[in-house]
Amino acid sequence: MQRTHYCGNLTEQQIGQEVTLQGWVQKRRDLGGLIFIDVRDRAGIVQTVFNPDISKEALEIAETLRNEYVVEIKGHVIERAEKTKNPNLKTGAIEVQVSDVKVVNEAKNPPFTIEDNTDVGEETRLKYRYLDLRRPELARVFKMRSDITKTVRNFLDDEGFLEVETPILTKSTPEGARDYLVPSRVHEGEFYALPQSPQLFKQLLMVSGFDRYYQIARCFRDEDLRADRQPEFTQIDMEMSFMSIEDILEMNERLMKKVMKDVKGVDIETPFKRLPYDEAMSRYGSDKPDTRFGMELTDVSEIVKDSSFKVFAGAVESGGQVKLINVKGAAEKYSRKDIDALGEYAKVYGAKGLAWLKVTEDGFNGPIAKFFDGEIGEALKTAGEGEVGDLFLFGADKKSVVADSLGALRLKLGKDLDLIDQSLYNFLWVTDWPLFEYDEEDGRYYAAHHPFTMPADVEQLKTHPESVKAQAYDLVLNGYELGGGSLRIYQREVQEEMFKALGFTEESAREQFGFLMDAFEYGTPPHGGIAFGLDRIVMLLAGSTNLRDTIAFPKTASASDLLTEAPSSVDDAQLKELGIKVVAEPAKK
Amino acid sequence: MQRTHYCGNLTEQQIGQEVTLQGWVQKRRDLGGLIFIDVRDRAGIVQTVFNPDISKEALEIAETLRNEYVVEIKGHVIERAEKTKNPNLKTGAIEVQVSDVKVVNEAKNPPFTIEDNTDVGEETRLKYRYLDLRRPELARVFKMRSDITKTVRNFLDDEGFLEVETPILTKSTPEGARDYLVPSRVHEGEFYALPQSPQLFKQLLMVSGFDRYYQIARCFRDEDLRADRQPEFTQIDMEMSFMSIEDILEMNERLMKKVMKDVKGVDIETPFKRLPYDEAMSRYGSDKPDTRFGMELTDVSEIVKDSSFKVFAGAVESGGQVKLINVKGAAEKYSRKDIDALGEYAKVYGAKGLAWLKVTEDGFNGPIAKFFDGEIGEALKTAGEGEVGDLFLFGADKKSVVADSLGALRLKLGKDLDLIDQSLYNFLWVTDWPLFEYDEEDGRYYAAHHPFTMPADVEQLKTHPESVKAQAYDLVLNGYELGGGSLRIYQREVQEEMFKALGFTEESAREQFGFLMDAFEYGTPPHGGIAFGLDRIVMLLAGSTNLRDTIAFPKTASASDLLTEAPSSVDDAQLKELGIKVVAEPAKK
Repeated sequence: MQRTHYCGNLTEQQIGQEVTLQGWVQKRRDLGGLIFIDVRDRAGIVQTVFNPDISKEALEIAETLRNEYVVEIKGHVIERAEKTKNPNLKTGAIEVQVSDVKVVNEAKNPPFTIEDNTDVGEETRLKYRYLDLRRPELARVFKMRSDITKTVRNFLDDEGFLEVETPILTKSTPEGARDYLVPSRVHEGEFYALPQSPQLFKQLLMVSGFDRYYQIARCFRDEDLRADRQPEFTQIDMEMSFMSIEDILEMNERLMKKVMKDVKGVDIETPFKRLPYDEAMSRYGSDKPDTRFGMELTDVSEIVKDSSFKVFAGAVESGGQVKLINVKGAAEKYSRKDIDALGEYAKVYGAKGLAWLKVTEDGFNGPIAKFFDGEIGEALKTAGEGEVGDLFLFGADKKSVVADSLGALRLKLGKDLDLIDQSLYNFLWVTDWPLFEYDEEDGRYYAAHHPFTMPADVEQLKTHPESVKAQAYDLVLNGYELGGGSLRIYQREVQEEMFKALGFTEESAREQFGFLMDAFEYGTPPHGGIAFGLDRIVMLLAGSTNLRDTIAFPKTASASDLLTEAPSSVDDAQLKELGIKVVAEPAKK
Repeated sequence: MQRTHYCGNLTEQQIGQEVTLQGWVQKRRDLGGLIFIDVRDRAGIVQTVFNPDISKEALEIAETLRNEYVVEIKGHVIERAEKTKNPNLKTGAIEVQVSDVKVVNEAKNPPFTIEDNTDVGEETRLKYRYLDLRRPELARVFKMRSDITKTVRNFLDDEGFLEVETPILTKSTPEGARDYLVPSRVHEGEFYALPQSPQLFKQLLMVSGFDRYYQIARCFRDEDLRADRQPEFTQIDMEMSFMSIEDILEMNERLMKKVMKDVKGVDIETPFKRLPYDEAMSRYGSDKPDTRFGMELTDVSEIVKDSSFKVFAGAVESGGQVKLINVKGAAEKYSRKDIDALGEYAKVYGAKGLAWLKVTEDGFNGPIAKFFDGEIGEALKTAGEGEVGDLFLFGADKKSVVADSLGALRLKLGKDLDLIDQSLYNFLWVTDWPLFEYDEEDGRYYAAHHPFTMPADVEQLKTHPESVKAQAYDLVLNGYELGGGSLRIYQREVQEEMFKALGFTEESAREQFGFLMDAFEYGTPPHGGIAFGLDRIVMLLAGSTNLRDTIAFPKTASASDLLTEAPSSVDDAQLKELGIKVVAEPAKK
């Protein structure tokens, strides 16, 4: 038998037709001498009915069917009785009257039922990932993922991009995140590294004159995992020559517009809003602000710097800031205890405490209200646009701590108070990034994006590296970073200056990146690019909150594959061939 | 300035237009006060002319230009004088009269000139791969590669296939080729493996009901490299449920037909010819025969088994074979010395020598002619369809040696004698493969394809494993294997029988593949698939003979990347974190 239709695609249009289906038993009900079986395939579910008047043999087989059996069914599509129609199901107006059925394969009782609202733990679902992937919800996510990559490929192809594959077995470069290493058998004692991104190769393709490159590229980072990180992830990776930042942003806006239209059926407006990094940090306390709601940060340092409340005055005096967010109309909702809880939350982000004021008919209310009566109180109220019933929350600390803690509070309150319109897709470019970030622990500068980013001012790179801006841009959607890119350095002298600023010796720069700097000397065009996190795009467009739901076979937070049980110990013979030896006990699980 | 056209796309259609070009200086000629510069970009080359009457400034800049400088040029497209038109160049009827030129980046003199017919060694070209990739010939190959994947993706998408990514960090399974290993930092002493193919994951996707899966998948094998092998390679990988072999072959014929039409503009006939494995070996001495020419192998064992030539009689007596190929009309061309050289060639493939006969007016000629006069000689001549002037070459040995040596000789002679019509694309399915191959060295059976291949007869698997056929198929083009696949085992009992036949203990089978056998118990549909080697397809369609030409950044035969110098030694700190130690000296290069 050969399938004529997917189960989930049958509608009134097929009434009267004979169809052949292949799928899984979702549910069986025995009712008044008939048997009803919901059959599921990747397109959805359809109800089939076994009637002894149609086929006694089929009914007898139906009696043996259990959940998740694989069946082939032949029958006629008929209209359901009016009162049994199910308007919530695409196939709900019809059913299939079975004339023939065949058990293709049997099934044990699965460890959890194949339904969207399963309450089984994620560990079990990952161990039996092949059953988890049967859930219609996940099937939908992977259809969407496939649709997104299709749209992206077609768009980039139309724009003249060539798809080029770059190596997975590459050279280890300690700058950046931790590499996964691969021991070499032929060159014993030496190692390949899995790429953190195709960065250097895509730049070399520009040197080669490929002009426009793209790849849906697998990347690897051996980092301690967080909920939204995976050891391997997928990037929509592109690089182009002779294009300005304007050209690159405009083209990527059209790409996103097309993805949103084709995949979600949503029209989004272009051009996207743009925020310089400094402004994003200042107004939202975040380099990836969720702009679907207000509650922006207000700098009140100038107002409070001379106040008698020493915490505020002292913060300003020692070079820090005092900022507030106005939680509109929330004074009543938040008890002192609630605000204490917010204070604890702020402490996670480095704040030492959380000062607050409630706006009343008669000035402010709260433990520090006494410091803010009269003129200074009025000035504060005006600056914060305070109205009766508002709650002011303050950050007073170093600039970065104020941004982090108030930025995090703003997001939490936005969610808690349901201020976010979930139907919005707020795309936003964050531009004018700093070129470097200073790491206090290591006492050195690191590249904020990567060491190949073009500085906005090459002279300044030599004289005042700490304040140089990067020709870099990030794309943010609803508070998530979708990806980022930059114009790249394409002159050897500038790249050398960059490495110098990062503390490389001439020798270490040459050893790690000599081939790139050599390449720059043979006629390199100006170029730039961008890379988007595909997994995260899928997650956001699918409305999921779990990155693992977007990856067919994901790993846990400890980088394990619970299904295949990787990583695992290997034969000594294998290690001997590689010229390596395990010196640790494999017992840390 | 923004590019208006690619250099290589300018034709008479743009005459009179002002254009802006961005590209590389291919060649400069100073001639009668004018300067001619050929400018190259990824689309091709166009001639530009600098005339002091148009712009003195531009001419002055042109005087400074050297090969591989990056330039931006503005000018008008004009028709060339009739006698200076170059009909061999797409842009040969026009030139660009330059009004403005800008040096975007300078270039050192490259270590080799950027031309298709470069005679520099491959080592230098790989070290400067970014320059090598500028050669129009390679640019063309990568355009074709991108076009092939585009066609494949669109075809499979139309057929309802979902693109799904499977993990690169997976579990090591010693069965099969050697794995690349990746030490785990979190689970010290344990290792991931890079996948040799997505085989198990794509089967699990079928268990999940994905129904049709594809992926352009990176695969890895740590094997000793041959000219046509790379440590990482790319597969067009697919798997489908509920399809018969006929369905799968028919769909893939349509896929290949479309690729050939879209990429090469060639119409190929479907259905493709099919040859059972045994017949391919018997007629061509090869499991991937080049059927563009004849010279088939003829079995003459029955004729010669009683002959007085002991080598032939003995070969048959001890269970072997005697076969011949008839090199038509070649008796004159091949001297005794030439034939000795062919004998040496046959020895590489295991033959102990090469017996031969030339057909003359008076029977045979040659050292063994005396054994084959009279009736037996007539019978031999008839069997080999010998005519005067033909050369018979014989193999007399074990069946496999006869096949290998005569098969190789046939191919060599086909090339040497120019018997192959290079315009043909002979697609061919080789079917009915043996399920197992016996390895004399190891004294055990190995899976001819892989251990997940469905046997043609499950009962026979239990009783006579050595003679079971596999439900497997390979696609061959002009003597190259493009790929292969099979129906898969989808029942636990059959998979267990398979592992047993391969000499697995119950425990080792469970340890390595337990998750797959478990999965088979939860409702697994019948399924099968196929995988094609993308690199090889590109090589054949591009008319190249070097697999490295199809890979942007390939590795050498010793698995080195000469450009980035991978693999390389790494910091001790990195190894310490991984809990491993190098026990070999890194000095074997």
